[in-house]
Parts: sequence; C-alpha cells; structure tokens
Amino acid sequence: MDSTMMEAMSKDMMSMPGMATMDMSVLQACMDACSACEQACTVCSTQMMSCAPACMNCADMCNTMMRAMMRMQGMTPASMMAMLDACIAMCQTCMDECMEHADHSEVCKMCAQSCKACMDACMAVRDMIMKAT
Amino acid sequence: MDSTMMEAMSKDMMSMPGMATMDMSVLQACMDACSACEQACTVCSTQMMSCAPACMNCADMCNTMMRAMMRMQGMTPASMMAMLDACIAMCQTCMDECMEHADHSEVCKMCAQSCKACMDACMAVRDMIMKAT
Amino acid sequence: MDSTMMEAMSKDMMSMPGMATMDMSVLQACMDACSACEQACTVCSTQMMSCAPACMNCADMCNTMMRAMMRMQGMTPASMMAMLDACIAMCQTCMDECMEHADHSEVCKMCAQSCKACMDACMAVRDMIMKAT
Amino acid sequence: MDSTMMEAMSKDMMSMPGMATMDMSVLQACMDACSACEQACTVCSTQMMSCAPACMNCADMCNTMMRAMMRMQGMTPASMMAMLDACIAMCQTCMDECMEHADHSEVCKMCAQSCKACMDACMAVRDMIMKAT
Repeated sequence: MDSTMMEAMSKDMMSMPGMATMDMSVLQACMDACSACEQACTVCSTQMMSCAPACMNCADMCNTMMRAMMRMQGMTPASMMAMLDACIAMCQTCMDECMEHADHSEVCKMCAQSCKACMDACMAVRDMIMKAT
Repeated sequence: MDSTMMEAMSKDMMSMPGMATMDMSVLQACMDACSACEQACTVCSTQMMSCAPACMNCADMCNTMMRAMMRMQGMTPASMMAMLDACIAMCQTCMDECMEHADHSEVCKMCAQSCKACMDACMAVRDMIMKAT
Repeated sequence: MDSTMMEAMSKDMMSMPGMATMDMSVLQACMDACSACEQACTVCSTQMMSCAPACMNCADMCNTMMRAMMRMQGMTPASMMAMLDACIAMCQTCMDECMEHADHSEVCKMCAQSCKACMDACMAVRDMIMKAT
Repeated sequence: MDSTMMEAMSKDMMSMPGMATMDMSVLQACMDACSACEQACTVCSTQMMSCAPACMNCADMCNTMMRAMMRMQGMTPASMMAMLDACIAMCQTCMDECMEHADHSEVCKMCAQSCKACMDACMAVRDMIMKAT
C-alpha cells in the first residue's frame, strides 16, 4: 500500500487504546499476506471440488481480515485477537486440505504455501498485540 | 433459505466428523441472523463516521460467517469455533459503538439490536458444536 | 429489512438527483432477491465444478449489488444502471450454466430459479430509474 | 500473482470461446489495479462521511471484478464486458467524489488516483476483448 495511506492509518491508530505502539511494518506485511492468500485461494477454488469450499471460505476470511486491519478505528485489541485466531484457523484448514493434493496439483501447492505465509503473518500481529496489551 | 438447499447442506454434513448431529434449524437461524446483521450494518455505515468502520468490519465478518456455514464442506469443528468467536467479537464491538448513539439515532439502535441477535445466534451454534464434539 | 432502516434509506435518497421518486418497495424487492441469489449461489458452488466458478462470481456480484443499493449515497443514476446491467449479466451466465444440470441436480435448479428472480428484480429497478431520469 | 497461478489461469482460458487470445499481462495488470483500488478505497472509507459510501461501493466492486477475472471459467465475453463497465462506472463515481476533497485530504487524493488507474486497466481489458470477439 501507498505510504500516504499507511501514514493515515498510523496516525489514526495513535489514539486507540493498546494500538499506539503497533509496528506498522508488521501490519503491512499481514495485510499483504492476506491479500496474496485471498488471490491464491480464489484461483485454487476453480480447480477441484475437494478443496474449493475450504479455499472460498479462506479467501473470504482473508479479505475480511485485511479490510479490518485497514479500518482499525472499528477494532479493539480483543476483536483483533479473535479475528486473527479465525483467520489462522481458516488458513490452517485450507492448507491441510490443499496439502493433500499438493503432489499432483501445482496450484494447490501454491495455495497451501500462501495459507502458511498468511498464518505466520497473522501470528506475528497477534504476538505484537499481546506484548502491547 | 429454500428447503431444497437446506436438505443438500444437511446431506453433505452427515459425512463430516462432529457435524452429523447438527440441528439444521439452529444453523438456519444463525445464517439468517448473519444476513440481517450484514444488512443493518451496511445501512448504518452510511450514517455517521464514529461507528462506520465498526459497522463495515462487522458487515464483512457476518457475510463471511454466513457463507462459511453454507460451505460446511470446507469447515472443521475447530475452524467453526474460531469463526463463531470472531463473529461474536465483531458484533460485540459494533454493538458497543452503536449503543453510544442509540438515543439519537434510530438506525444505530436497530443496528445494535441486529448485532445482539447475531451474537446470540452464533452462541447457539457454538453451544451445539461444543456438545457434539 | 426493518422499516426503520428503509425509512433512513428513503430519507437519504430524497436529496439525490434522479432518486427522489424511487419506489422503495421495488428497491426492497431487489435487495431481497440479490440476498437470496447470493445464498443460493453460495450453496450451489459446493456441488460440482462445472458451475462453481459462475456461481461464486454471481454470489459476489449479487452481494455487491445489494450493498450498493443500501449505500445509495455513493451511487449515481449512471453507476446504478451499469451495476444493474452487470448483475443481470452475471445472473444470466450463472442461470445458463446451472440450467444445463437442472435435470439431475435439484440445487442447480433452485440456483437457476434464484438467478432468474434476481434478474427480473434488477430489471424492475432499471426500468424505474429509466423512467425517473 | 505467482506465475504458477497465472499459468493455470491461462491454460483454463484456452478452451473458452473468445478468450484464447487474451494477453495475460493485461489481465494481470487489471487484477493488480483492482486489488490496489479496493485497498485505497477501504482506507479512504474511514476518513470522512461524504465519500465513504462511494468508496465502500467501489471497494466491493473492485474485489468482485478481481475475483471474476481469477475465475474466468465462470465468465463469458458478454458478462466480462458488463462487469468491466460496472467497475469503470464505480471507479468514476468514487473518483469524482474523492476529487472534491483532494485539496485538503491526501488520502482522498490517493484514492482518486487508484480509481483512475483501475478505470484505465479495466478499459485496456475491455479493448482487448472487443478486438478478440
């Protein structure tokens, strides 16, 4: 995202309880990972029926997570933690499913890797919030 | 939702671990509450800046929750629990915000009531899954 | 949707060029048809790979259309017309696809009927806007 | 997006009427512009009430457009054209609104620029389809 946008987000977060000390680069990395995971899951959802529902659910959750991070004015530390846990759970579920056909589908393999990266990025934000609160 | 659709969903859930004993009417009530809450939050998000971000975040989460319940093939009991917790947290956050202007905004009051109904419906599904697993 | 919400929407639309004479019941019927179509398409997208991508695309467009009608402050008559045309086109595409397996899939049959109802409801709104502008 | 994903998309499009000759780099640029525009609009929707509804509507449409391009199996040349027209109309509406406060809001200025870039990218895809069909 553009630096102007990040600055606006950062400024708004200064006044939120427990958010002032957020490292914006950790949030930025998480938003990027959510966006990449949504895209990988969306493509993967067209390939085979066995993983399509998990991929679509994960795509929707990643988009919702990304948007929530871009609208932190409407979040609390508690709702952020619950959302991150849900996003991690959906990425885990989709990754587990896609890993079962990773050997014969390059798309599923890529999708599973995007899920793993998104999980890791969400965990990093969760760790940051836990330290701050 | 149409009974044909509910039957298809019910049949698919029979084979899922921990899902076979689900009461479809509890799920149906939750999907309806999520849909109603998404709609109330979407209208409310156009009324004043103080609650708009919370309303938009809640609308997105309610839609994602509803869709996940319609695509149970891509869910596990664990991911369902995490999603329900996140949806409850978002409804709580939005309700708290909208209740602050419920006295002078009928829309915020209605939005807060939709959030409360959605929280209750999600808790009922959560209780059902906890008993089944 | 609740009558309080409809009143708020109606009041806001009074000041929009070309929107003042809108019949709210026609809009309401269209929002309901979009919501029902999104739900039918979401369930149908889990059943077979041949129609899943069309169903998912249609579900997303119906949700986007419904939300836009709930946030008319951000619409113009011209953008409304383009959105309605796109929603009609996506419903047509999904209906055509699902009709091909309507004989052996009750879910596809129901999905096609929801698409048809949504197309008709969008056309009614389009006719209303054309007369008003 | 990852090259593996683009290859899978490209291969699937080979069999679609009127899609075989698509230049994937033009599609890729459009998906990227839709994603960037969704993000800019989402951040901008938290800043002031005057443009928030237009920004939210535009964010939803850009996301729906991006996903449709990632699920071309569910599109026809005709539905692609209608979707592109709708996305262009929503970007135009949001840009017009945000340009009115671009002088005193850096976020609105950035949002308007993202809308313009997304419009241009959609027009490039539209031109490509018109030549191919």
